[in-house]
Amino acid sequence: MFALVGKLVDYYSIRDGAVLIEGNTIRAVVPVKELRNWDVDEVYGGENHVVIPGFINAHTHVAMAKFRGLGEDLPTEEWLEKIVWPMEKEWTRKEIRKWAEVGIREALANGSTTINDHYFFADEIAKVAQRLGIRAFIGQTVMDEVNFSLASPEGGFRFFKKWLGRSELVTPVLAPHATNTVSLGLLREIAELSKETGAKVHIHLAQSRWEVEQVKRRYGLSPVELLGKAGLLNEKTIGVHGVYLKEGDFSKLAQAGSTLVHCPTSNVKLEGRTVNLRELMSLGLNVALGNDSPNPTGILDPFLEMRTAGMVANLTAGKAHAVPAREIFGMATLFGARALGLRAGLIKPGYLADLVLINAEEPWFRPMKNLYSLLVYSARGSDVKMAVVNGRVQYSAEHFS
Amino acid sequence: MFALVGKLVDYYSIRDGAVLIEGNTIRAVVPVKELRNWDVDEVYGGENHVVIPGFINAHTHVAMAKFRGLGEDLPTEEWLEKIVWPMEKEWTRKEIRKWAEVGIREALANGSTTINDHYFFADEIAKVAQRLGIRAFIGQTVMDEVNFSLASPEGGFRFFKKWLGRSELVTPVLAPHATNTVSLGLLREIAELSKETGAKVHIHLAQSRWEVEQVKRRYGLSPVELLGKAGLLNEKTIGVHGVYLKEGDFSKLAQAGSTLVHCPTSNVKLEGRTVNLRELMSLGLNVALGNDSPNPTGILDPFLEMRTAGMVANLTAGKAHAVPAREIFGMATLFGARALGLRAGLIKPGYLADLVLINAEEPWFRPMKNLYSLLVYSARGSDVKMAVVNGRVQYSAEHFS
Repeated sequence: MFALVGKLVDYYSIRDGAVLIEGNTIRAVVPVKELRNWDVDEVYGGENHVVIPGFINAHTHVAMAKFRGLGEDLPTEEWLEKIVWPMEKEWTRKEIRKWAEVGIREALANGSTTINDHYFFADEIAKVAQRLGIRAFIGQTVMDEVNFSLASPEGGFRFFKKWLGRSELVTPVLAPHATNTVSLGLLREIAELSKETGAKVHIHLAQSRWEVEQVKRRYGLSPVELLGKAGLLNEKTIGVHGVYLKEGDFSKLAQAGSTLVHCPTSNVKLEGRTVNLRELMSLGLNVALGNDSPNPTGILDPFLEMRTAGMVANLTAGKAHAVPAREIFGMATLFGARALGLRAGLIKPGYLADLVLINAEEPWFRPMKNLYSLLVYSARGSDVKMAVVNGRVQYSAEHFS
Repeated sequence: MFALVGKLVDYYSIRDGAVLIEGNTIRAVVPVKELRNWDVDEVYGGENHVVIPGFINAHTHVAMAKFRGLGEDLPTEEWLEKIVWPMEKEWTRKEIRKWAEVGIREALANGSTTINDHYFFADEIAKVAQRLGIRAFIGQTVMDEVNFSLASPEGGFRFFKKWLGRSELVTPVLAPHATNTVSLGLLREIAELSKETGAKVHIHLAQSRWEVEQVKRRYGLSPVELLGKAGLLNEKTIGVHGVYLKEGDFSKLAQAGSTLVHCPTSNVKLEGRTVNLRELMSLGLNVALGNDSPNPTGILDPFLEMRTAGMVANLTAGKAHAVPAREIFGMATLFGARALGLRAGLIKPGYLADLVLINAEEPWFRPMKNLYSLLVYSARGSDVKMAVVNGRVQYSAEHFS
């Protein structure tokens, strides 16, 4: 058993205390002075430290670290056609492993204890995730309206079945690429498999104008209506982006208990566009936060993503503090856990010990008064001192005070 | 003489090399293999390092670190009335020194080698800046349309005259608070003093709707037209924010050779609003970058400010990459130096040795291909390994590889 000590901050509360970790779960949360009553091997943190639930990066493609910084100045379609697709044709298993490792180490070092990844060669990515000790929901991208051998439905289902129920850290999910690149038939097959197995369905949703137009032309439906027709409008579905959805679509997602993953940096970099976060939250929609890939996002730092979410929400609403810092922090932790059906995202006995210890000795944590604001607007992934996943220390900065 | 080695990146070029520093200036820039021909005491950097001109934070109030995180959820006027003004009445010299030190250490540690500060008790802030070794342009805020003893014109002029020509690091500037809080008479007096001494004039410009309305009511003019009437529409003037200016005003600033300091985080946090950076740049206006104060900005990290500037520009223009990363990097370095009349902001013999060494060994610098993009969208102040100001190492991270 070991303990993390500091200000304990989660979506529901801020208090001083110690988190006791045994096996892969939080055994107890106690006042610091009661620590002596427990049989604790190690204590990390203390004064000027903050303990938070590990961040959940609810949408990413870690291996795309390989493309970081490339194709700047291109809009989405050209970026895909000129940079991403040609480079994706060149992937080898070895290269995937190399760049998945870059992305996963980066995620852990910046405080993400869970990733939800959507990519090709998912089996390789799953093995890297397992080895590096991050919690990973992994789906192999499938498409059948576009012919791309790495994204064949057979390959995707094979990966899914291979990893189902196999690992404590890696959970396979179903990963149809998007509403325009996957046929209605395949979407229905995926809905069936999700129903049988309880697996989550992770899909790009209205990321580009082009996607929405294609779906409209093909079915006369909006992307969300198409999900409904396919049997995918339910709490298993995790739709990503939504930047070209209409308000009625968001209400349908909210009513169905689906999740929308908001990736503000990605959307603004690629489309100069975003959702209106303040409105989405007022609909009661579960909104999680995603870093998306290192290209276009630049870095898998959940703190920067929270900060960007706050900015972008203000600018869209045209007002100060359109969404409170606490809600943004919730998106990056608890709401992501809800999306994935994880008993995580809170500092609470019985919850998974997926936690992050922050060194808050630096000037930018002073005065240490409004912690939600400090975490969203002042902190960066570089303030992470330790990341604990499933009860084990999987990342630690070199030096402990 | 010492040297910084790595990829040398400034607004005009990216090359491998070594920067030789002697006294307070850059003596030479040479290929690494020629280093042996020079009598060098120390070499810092090398493989996987990047050397850039130190950032210029062209608008800040460092001592406002004291208010960090406070008053979130309030729009500008309420934030001023409920948080800032009451706390400002409580300032003592000792408290100013304490919090100016917090802000300046934070600025240096994150790669700013120059600040342009606008605040009360400027004499104390100047002394702290001098002691900590940051280059500082400092103005004591003056107002006469609002009665606030800390901002009396006499006190401001006294500070200005005391520090004029006195220090290599600290340069006093004239700091009228804003176009609505300073009378036309006082603005004219300031214009005269600027003309006599060559000093810069640092002024908040159209930060709130309220300011613009007051100026209109009082003079029938826009804030920029008022500057013109006061004799302040020239290359000495550094106007800040401009979020409520009209396009014609920006053209007038551009024609006059004045600078606009863009503070995207501050503007978006307090007003949910911004300038259209892409348009400003197309007018040929010199735009510099400012962190503004730790409240509302969260942290004095020029890298986050560049990233935010890029995002906000895209969202305002409704397109991807509305302003190239290189231009944003220029705003934070060279264009800030132009605003302040500093021979700095480039890695060039004869220029001031105000430089930053970046440790680029971390995953988020891989692949190291598009350096402007990596600096703007992937790097953070925590990647700064060393900050050199006026030829002296004034900040260094604990560990050198």
